[in-house]
Amino acid sequence: MSEQIYIGVDLGGTAVKVGICNAEGKLLQTYEGPTEVAKGTDAVLANIEKYVRQIVEDSPYSWDQLAGVGAGVAGFTDLKEGVVILAPNVGFRDVPVRAILEERLGKPIKIDNDANVAALGEAWGGAGKGVDDCVCYTLGTGVGGGIIIRGKIYQGFSGLAGELGHMSVVPDLEAIQCGCGKMGCLETVSSATGIIRMAKDAVERGDRTSLAQVENIMAKDVFDAAKNGDEVAERIVNRAAFYLGKSMAAVAAVLNPQRFIIGGGVSKAGDILFDEIRSVFAKFAPEPLQRGVEIVPATLGNDAGIVGAAGLFLRS
Amino acid sequence: MSEQIYIGVDLGGTAVKVGICNAEGKLLQTYEGPTEVAKGTDAVLANIEKYVRQIVEDSPYSWDQLAGVGAGVAGFTDLKEGVVILAPNVGFRDVPVRAILEERLGKPIKIDNDANVAALGEAWGGAGKGVDDCVCYTLGTGVGGGIIIRGKIYQGFSGLAGELGHMSVVPDLEAIQCGCGKMGCLETVSSATGIIRMAKDAVERGDRTSLAQVENIMAKDVFDAAKNGDEVAERIVNRAAFYLGKSMAAVAAVLNPQRFIIGGGVSKAGDILFDEIRSVFAKFAPEPLQRGVEIVPATLGNDAGIVGAAGLFLRS
Repeated sequence: MSEQIYIGVDLGGTAVKVGICNAEGKLLQTYEGPTEVAKGTDAVLANIEKYVRQIVEDSPYSWDQLAGVGAGVAGFTDLKEGVVILAPNVGFRDVPVRAILEERLGKPIKIDNDANVAALGEAWGGAGKGVDDCVCYTLGTGVGGGIIIRGKIYQGFSGLAGELGHMSVVPDLEAIQCGCGKMGCLETVSSATGIIRMAKDAVERGDRTSLAQVENIMAKDVFDAAKNGDEVAERIVNRAAFYLGKSMAAVAAVLNPQRFIIGGGVSKAGDILFDEIRSVFAKFAPEPLQRGVEIVPATLGNDAGIVGAAGLFLRS
Repeated sequence: MSEQIYIGVDLGGTAVKVGICNAEGKLLQTYEGPTEVAKGTDAVLANIEKYVRQIVEDSPYSWDQLAGVGAGVAGFTDLKEGVVILAPNVGFRDVPVRAILEERLGKPIKIDNDANVAALGEAWGGAGKGVDDCVCYTLGTGVGGGIIIRGKIYQGFSGLAGELGHMSVVPDLEAIQCGCGKMGCLETVSSATGIIRMAKDAVERGDRTSLAQVENIMAKDVFDAAKNGDEVAERIVNRAAFYLGKSMAAVAAVLNPQRFIIGGGVSKAGDILFDEIRSVFAKFAPEPLQRGVEIVPATLGNDAGIVGAAGLFLRS
């Protein structure tokens, strides 16, 4: 039989990205088209169909080789029923995506939320390739995550496993309230939002920092200042890294994963962030839980979502 | 075909406890005999064989109905090879227990360490019955644990998943060193040892407490004093409960389990401990991670090890 292929769909508010993967998680070809949210749910689903048919047509593969289509959606999804319950950025509410696309494409369909799908993409075809048990952190506006157990996404009791940004790690005395309503969540200090907040607080307090000259501080400005020896910026970066490393030590005691994979915009800071995370992890994780364990950057970047969506067939 | 039965062996330094379970995790019959560690490894293994044959003989079941024998051992075990690498309390070092007992009994054998086996026992036949995803804490001299995922023990990368006592949860300023060499582990405040240490510290500091009258303070004394309104004792119990509840909130963000099961000697303190744990959990776990989640006492007591060992055949 000829090689089977899998298509992953990353359904975003502006663009639909689709990609063809082989059974080993290698991304072979990509295609992108507008989502056209304004035209309504039917139009968005018709676009997905169109782009999936188009990418296969453009490729050296035949429609018969296509074993299934997976899709990642930012929002709440009912995995068992294949229904998107609520996905505000594409305007979906209670849309039976699986049933509709199966009807339109005549292929098996799977859906999951974007954080899980991105984690699976890294685990399957990126920085976790060949590793059965890994934990993925995504450091962006918030802190997301995904747990890969025995090679597959682990959902937990109500589909909320991997909400790593909501581990309460900051001691009460220094804690601030998180968007989730609780105090001291990792997200309050280790997300781009948290880093920017700490920088603005420092400037407002009148701390001596080059960040005072920056008009609209972004997380990247804080990392750049830290790399240039700005002590206030260094302190902020170290604080973000401290709670990441400490949370990983806690995760290690619970799950003993082989690899931690860190992706998302903030992870682009590189060594200045990773060195400190690794050092804090080594400080708090008992030695046997460190042995053979790696903390590595994600490698797929924005393609993680496509690859992971394709992987839903083999790894979920 | 007649009903299959499974035998669990709890291999302790003084006694070997064996029990017959059915396929639903119900403990049907037990038997206990001396381990006789002083007579050496061969004698201990011969005793296990003897007690297993004896319990079947005493029971209404036939030898043919016996589908397998599982054993839990306190120590380091190589699960894949069925070898006990080091179990000081029974004097085993690099003993191929599985191979030897398979030869002696002519039945399939499985072994695992005692903490995992006890967690599996509770999950399979005790407080976790019917629940696929649960996390077990054992509060004794130390704090142990076990992670049950999709109904089975989860070992992690190097067999160390569920080392819940070594989550670093106490902030640096208040942290003391744990036996594992790291600072601020849960075990330093929420084990019997931790509770006794906090009580002795309070007495030495001259705090006004009825515990000053107790000669050799045990964890139970602290709980009794707290129940009688001793404020110092209450503070200690609340501190032990605080970090347990906080660690559970962190575990919930990682794994989203349906149920937390708490066993071990310290858990016998009852409501005074559980009420505070639940209240702290509710304070730190985001609301969606609390929904439908229960924190309950273990129900099997000392039988958890036998039941879990029998369960190794169906649930590992």
